Amino acid sequence: MTRLRSSQSWPRSIQAKPKSNIKFVFEGEEEAGSPNFGHILEGNKALFSGDVWLICDGPVHQSRRPLVAFGARGIATVDITVYGPRRELHSGHYGNWAPNPAWMLLNALNSLKNSSGRVLIDHFYDNIEPLSDTEKRAIAEAPDFDVELKKELWLGATEGAPKKLIELLQQPSLNIRGMASARVGAQASNVIPSTATASIDMRLVKGMDHKQTIARFIEHIRKQGFFIVDTEPSADVRMSHARVAKIVSKEGGYNAVRTSMDLPISKEVVRAVESARGPAVKVPTMGGSVPLDMIERALGTHTITVPIANHDNNQHSFNENIRIQNLWDGIELMAALLTM
Amino acid sequence: MTRLRSSQSWPRSIQAKPKSNIKFVFEGEEEAGSPNFGHILEGNKALFSGDVWLICDGPVHQSRRPLVAFGARGIATVDITVYGPRRELHSGHYGNWAPNPAWMLLNALNSLKNSSGRVLIDHFYDNIEPLSDTEKRAIAEAPDFDVELKKELWLGATEGAPKKLIELLQQPSLNIRGMASARVGAQASNVIPSTATASIDMRLVKGMDHKQTIARFIEHIRKQGFFIVDTEPSADVRMSHARVAKIVSKEGGYNAVRTSMDLPISKEVVRAVESARGPAVKVPTMGGSVPLDMIERALGTHTITVPIANHDNNQHSFNENIRIQNLWDGIELMAALLTM
Repeated sequence: MTRLRSSQSWPRSIQAKPKSNIKFVFEGEEEAGSPNFGHILEGNKALFSGDVWLICDGPVHQSRRPLVAFGARGIATVDITVYGPRRELHSGHYGNWAPNPAWMLLNALNSLKNSSGRVLIDHFYDNIEPLSDTEKRAIAEAPDFDVELKKELWLGATEGAPKKLIELLQQPSLNIRGMASARVGAQASNVIPSTATASIDMRLVKGMDHKQTIARFIEHIRKQGFFIVDTEPSADVRMSHARVAKIVSKEGGYNAVRTSMDLPISKEVVRAVESARGPAVKVPTMGGSVPLDMIERALGTHTITVPIANHDNNQHSFNENIRIQNLWDGIELMAALLTM
Repeated sequence: MTRLRSSQSWPRSIQAKPKSNIKFVFEGEEEAGSPNFGHILEGNKALFSGDVWLICDGPVHQSRRPLVAFGARGIATVDITVYGPRRELHSGHYGNWAPNPAWMLLNALNSLKNSSGRVLIDHFYDNIEPLSDTEKRAIAEAPDFDVELKKELWLGATEGAPKKLIELLQQPSLNIRGMASARVGAQASNVIPSTATASIDMRLVKGMDHKQTIARFIEHIRKQGFFIVDTEPSADVRMSHARVAKIVSKEGGYNAVRTSMDLPISKEVVRAVESARGPAVKVPTMGGSVPLDMIERALGTHTITVPIANHDNNQHSFNENIRIQNLWDGIELMAALLTM
């Protein structure tokens, strides 16, 4: 949704009319890394231009208070596969002799982070743009919902404790989003697996480049003694190296953006949101990733995210849902924004 | 197959008749840990008794030479599951804050072995019964097929190099037979997984006890800071501990056995095998596990393993197969044993 001109806060009336020109943009490939979005924007600048882009992605605050996010973390994803024997081997007849790719993988992954969650890739945290005073204040003022959230999620501890969630989301992260080697549980059999794979997502903050971050990840794995390939390694390659890792970044990634909270348009959006839904939680960077960078680069505009969905919507997992109250709240919120 | 009495080596004649009383025993639950086998033997000692049990499990030598194994490694299997958030979480909105069970699992597993493959569990190698001079000689005389095998399996290195396969199989092993957390590849999604699981098999050599080995494994994981449970942990348990690991040993395990190569019956079996199939590779302990311990304990007899199958039969994995030549060789071999 892009907005061309604004005036004043939303009058709570059924008769309210937009005071700006409104454009709606629907991006259907966002979960696939938006491979065509930037290209389409670049080719149709006039059609997509506006004073500000308001993005509806992401969840409101866990306290169910409205949330305004002035940016989003960028993302870079990689899949890493390491290789053992050509075929699965009987773990009795070859165990101790045939190298097990699951061990190789966990050695490699274990080198990526220390026990307090700090990423150990060289230069990973270089060039991160520090938060402004307004941004720091917004984080300090944000409600601390962590105790309730730990209960809701059955957590005995958090990774970056004692820092609270909103603080930690202002930093980049490196996450194992999936890991697999042979089979477990009732399907387990006594084999030395042939391969082991992990899927990784790294969340980036302003100042980090997604391509450079992937290059640094690859370099780190190389330093752990792996020969790196980006396609399925041949028999020759596997026989010439003790440790081979295939690293691919199929979805690529994009950079983080952060709109200043001090811009007049930023203040105006907060006012409109609060007029409809009460005090808003203001977040410099939300944890999730949205291709805001493509929008800002192509159109030279600003982006501000005003989410509607509930935090406990199981996004990206089983039983995704929307809480009905959030739908009603969202209608009020959007009416306020359309008439601001 | 059990054999009661023996006399001389097999005459190569179609008219050859058994010189011993022969009993055949078929165990259909061996791949499931033989949960009933010991009990059935104990309850029917007279029916199953004999001077020696000849076992047909396992593969012949990789060189396709016949093999006589005087024992087999024991086995102990465990499944370990560690816990993150109650449900999968969006890795953007919670990454850096919500603990990821995949990291916990790989920290725990990484502590189990050093880079040269040595198991780091306290007392893991205690009480291992040393090899006799005859056994050491047999290992030294066994053909070294490792270079060919590395080529066949596309391996750039082996775990216990420069020791050869047959030497390494005389030691216990700790293998990750499977590992899983959320999803990888095309199914990967941007989540912090809710659980991570590894399935482990430990191969034991004579002198190690399978129950004690599992207890030591559990104790090792406990020392890594995990609260250990053996059933699905409740919300309370998960909220009261930073790290919770469920460890179960559904299949249990059994101990290794090793029959002396110097017994008259041992020498006789070798003679019979060699009369039919030429020089045999003599192995004190084969790598795979067979519940020989249950047989020897219940019946006070000896066990010797004379395999038929090819080493490249993909045992325990996809496309299991038998090489036709091995079937013909096996017929000759069995005829020699039945008439020895």
